[in-house]
Amino acid sequence: MSVDEIRRRPSNTRASVLRAPGPCARWDDDNAAFIREILDLVGDKWSVLVIGTLADGPVRYSDLADAIPGVSQRMLTLTLKQLRRTGLVAREAFAEVPPRVEYRLTPLGASLLSTVLALAEWSAEHFAEIRGNQLAYDRG
Amino acid sequence: MSVDEIRRRPSNTRASVLRAPGPCARWDDDNAAFIREILDLVGDKWSVLVIGTLADGPVRYSDLADAIPGVSQRMLTLTLKQLRRTGLVAREAFAEVPPRVEYRLTPLGASLLSTVLALAEWSAEHFAEIRGNQLAYDRG
Repeated sequence: MSVDEIRRRPSNTRASVLRAPGPCARWDDDNAAFIREILDLVGDKWSVLVIGTLADGPVRYSDLADAIPGVSQRMLTLTLKQLRRTGLVAREAFAEVPPRVEYRLTPLGASLLSTVLALAEWSAEHFAEIRGNQLAYDRG
Repeated sequence: MSVDEIRRRPSNTRASVLRAPGPCARWDDDNAAFIREILDLVGDKWSVLVIGTLADGPVRYSDLADAIPGVSQRMLTLTLKQLRRTGLVAREAFAEVPPRVEYRLTPLGASLLSTVLALAEWSAEHFAEIRGNQLAYDRG
């Protein structure tokens, strides 16, 4: 079921209140756990920020570290390894002096880019509103 | 900078390799940590699946639990509390017999819906490819 199909279904009907197909409706049990694992991976804040930072082309490790405030060397290395394992990011080493290593999005990574940029942009746009909501909630 | 502006910048230029503005370019240090926190919250797999499941209108707690395979009662309760605190989800109790409690997206939650559905759909569409990538990576 596509996003459009999901969104076109009538809302507020009794049936939709009782049965909520949602995004998991087509997942069988075998796949569900693995799809959740992928969601965790691609929704992870450091993954989102690395993918977003690679939007314009290859970037060196040190420039990635500079572009993402608050990321530790350990987390950046770990995130890049996970992204390479997932097939979202590729690493290329150039035999130069000094040696140059760049990271870039694969076609799979590029296919996730618009979603990831939308998520990062939404978070940046709404953070003041969300901070207000959290304060109001905590006051009871 | 909008997503369009980010994506329109020329790629593979030396400048873009050296300086990678990325999604964090406009965040000052005070905001960056909080924006990362929001990213973690809205990118969390259970948040994504709850928001996606509320796409069509209000859903009862028990129907949410049924629609999201693998979610424990503890995780669903915790996720709903976080989503209410963030202001993405509202809870409404109806004085009926038996009592009825429903959860629904707020306008803020609805503004995140298309991004969240895109993320869930991307994960479901690409899981076979990703599993293959992971196996290939692990074989070295």
